[in-house]
Amino acid sequence: MKIKDKYYRTIWLDEAQEGVVKIIDQRSLPHQLVIEDLRSLEDSATAIREMHVRGAPLIGVTAAYGMYLGLYNAPADTDWEIFIPQAMVSLQQTRPTAVDLFNVLHRMKTALAGQLNKSDLVATAKALAHEVAEESVNFCRNIGRHGLELIEQIFEQKGQQTVNILTHCNAGWMACIDHGTATAPIYAAHDKGIPIHVWVDETRPRNQGARITAFELLEHGVPHTVIVDNLGGHLMQHQQVDMVIVGTDRTTRAGDVANKIGTYLKALAAHDNQVPFYVALPSSTIDWNLRDGVKEIPIEERSGQEVKHIRGLENGTLKEVLLTPADSPVLNYGFDVTPARLVTGLITERGVCEASEAGLLALYPEGAIG
Amino acid sequence: MKIKDKYYRTIWLDEAQEGVVKIIDQRSLPHQLVIEDLRSLEDSATAIREMHVRGAPLIGVTAAYGMYLGLYNAPADTDWEIFIPQAMVSLQQTRPTAVDLFNVLHRMKTALAGQLNKSDLVATAKALAHEVAEESVNFCRNIGRHGLELIEQIFEQKGQQTVNILTHCNAGWMACIDHGTATAPIYAAHDKGIPIHVWVDETRPRNQGARITAFELLEHGVPHTVIVDNLGGHLMQHQQVDMVIVGTDRTTRAGDVANKIGTYLKALAAHDNQVPFYVALPSSTIDWNLRDGVKEIPIEERSGQEVKHIRGLENGTLKEVLLTPADSPVLNYGFDVTPARLVTGLITERGVCEASEAGLLALYPEGAIG
Repeated sequence: MKIKDKYYRTIWLDEAQEGVVKIIDQRSLPHQLVIEDLRSLEDSATAIREMHVRGAPLIGVTAAYGMYLGLYNAPADTDWEIFIPQAMVSLQQTRPTAVDLFNVLHRMKTALAGQLNKSDLVATAKALAHEVAEESVNFCRNIGRHGLELIEQIFEQKGQQTVNILTHCNAGWMACIDHGTATAPIYAAHDKGIPIHVWVDETRPRNQGARITAFELLEHGVPHTVIVDNLGGHLMQHQQVDMVIVGTDRTTRAGDVANKIGTYLKALAAHDNQVPFYVALPSSTIDWNLRDGVKEIPIEERSGQEVKHIRGLENGTLKEVLLTPADSPVLNYGFDVTPARLVTGLITERGVCEASEAGLLALYPEGAIG
Repeated sequence: MKIKDKYYRTIWLDEAQEGVVKIIDQRSLPHQLVIEDLRSLEDSATAIREMHVRGAPLIGVTAAYGMYLGLYNAPADTDWEIFIPQAMVSLQQTRPTAVDLFNVLHRMKTALAGQLNKSDLVATAKALAHEVAEESVNFCRNIGRHGLELIEQIFEQKGQQTVNILTHCNAGWMACIDHGTATAPIYAAHDKGIPIHVWVDETRPRNQGARITAFELLEHGVPHTVIVDNLGGHLMQHQQVDMVIVGTDRTTRAGDVANKIGTYLKALAAHDNQVPFYVALPSSTIDWNLRDGVKEIPIEERSGQEVKHIRGLENGTLKEVLLTPADSPVLNYGFDVTPARLVTGLITERGVCEASEAGLLALYPEGAIG
């Protein structure tokens, strides 16, 4: 997508020099556009852990490029059978909830298996990282195509009035490589000329909505309004929301979804007000091994500093300010789980299905053996 | 209640000089304890409108003292029949949702009616402001007594384990004169030695939870944890919340409650997880004229600046930082309405009742003619 009319992806290879991967350091958005060089496995792990990059698909691709950088920097005489598992573990330990990370590293492990020559390993890792990135772009494009049909239906039902869509967190192109998951149908509809307005939940504590989704939509020219996370229920009570579209970091085979903390509250409000609640997901987020999301999906606990402090702009400079009494304890979980019963449908790259095992298996018969 | 072991109320008369009312300017909490002098009707209206003071009961009392200051400062030959209605209107127009403001001013109008002598008017207004303040303190004390019984029941049901109570916004003593509404049962239980732990919703956009409730609880020594507004649902899914207690700014005769934006989302989550959801209220917040809260209670729209910017402490100085893209639109409603069907019970100064017309009328038979 575009920023100030220049086309960007969230991660790309530096064409000028081998062994350098470029990312947008999303921590400074929307106030500053910072491009960061990743030059090592450690750089990549840090970028994931410290959320220079975030979003399930982008985490997966960054981990794949991290393996490439790790192999590229290793001496030719490295004991690969020790190095590769260690590198995998260091990337796996960055963040626990999004399953793309584990899915991509599993593919990487399979692809590298049996190879013992450095240049082969580097080439394989680089090619797989590229493949996963391109796959994500295609998945998102197709999610956009399928989600567009849902928006068009609502647009017609409303007598061609503006369609108001609420989203939580950032499941935009900044969470992926391009297009986004939850935003892909929005961009597709907007680009087709359907009048769209997006309610952007600010998404405390890290404000990915207020910072990143708002930035994306502003740059692409999509009408939107930033709201506090507390407002969505009131808007739904007053018929100001026609549909909700969110992303997911891990989807169980039963259709439960783990997404940014607070998603569950919006799903409850949508259900209470008969507002369609859709979850957009590439199949890379499906975890066929899990069924009961509330019981089984590991939920990341992050530093309380993210709750106590917030960063923003003062006189052109980024400042971090304390919000609570210095001595008050805080607790910070990154995700919650929305049970399938609250989800109207899943928008996948293969089409829209019911949030249920039957729904998912109809689109992904290969999941039956998962 | 106490701050640094000194006893405070939220508003009091300056004993040293007539015509001065003192308040805690709550905008600087928890970082600075600022005591402000109100010397005029305009000072009082500004303090309410700009939220130096907030909370339904405290708004009512501040308005009453505002009338006293207005009368005190007016020349003796003022045309009171013009002055008094104008003064009332200027106070009524400060904030629309909390009904205490209108109830107190209605009492003031009745008390002042027919008086034409300045010193009588001043004395009447001062006495009524004092009466309303003392009434609030007594109401809150009794809410504490009745709510304590509910906490004791849960404490016994849990085998005398710590009772985890979630609250939203600040319905603490800072929203009243002393004790608080939602916090009164909490303080009563804590003071009785029942182990209590409070989940404090930060309550965006103005963070009355993270700033004021946390400050109150910390000063009183009540164990608590500040959480983002998004977290409560997850905690309830995982049995980490034993009950919810919130306040209300306006309660309809059917038991619908308008409270800080986001309360409705917590009520939905409590209902979905069978967590008791109580609303603590002095009868001053009951509006016997209204029935359907979602349709009928006027909801205040506040400045978008409260969403875009936030104030916090950096190196000992209060700074205000920008959180969103400068050009993104925002929308800021202050309250939402929780329908009675989601409320387990109302904790009033006369006892606990069902959130329904029958429940309220059983405690307040005088409401039948309202």
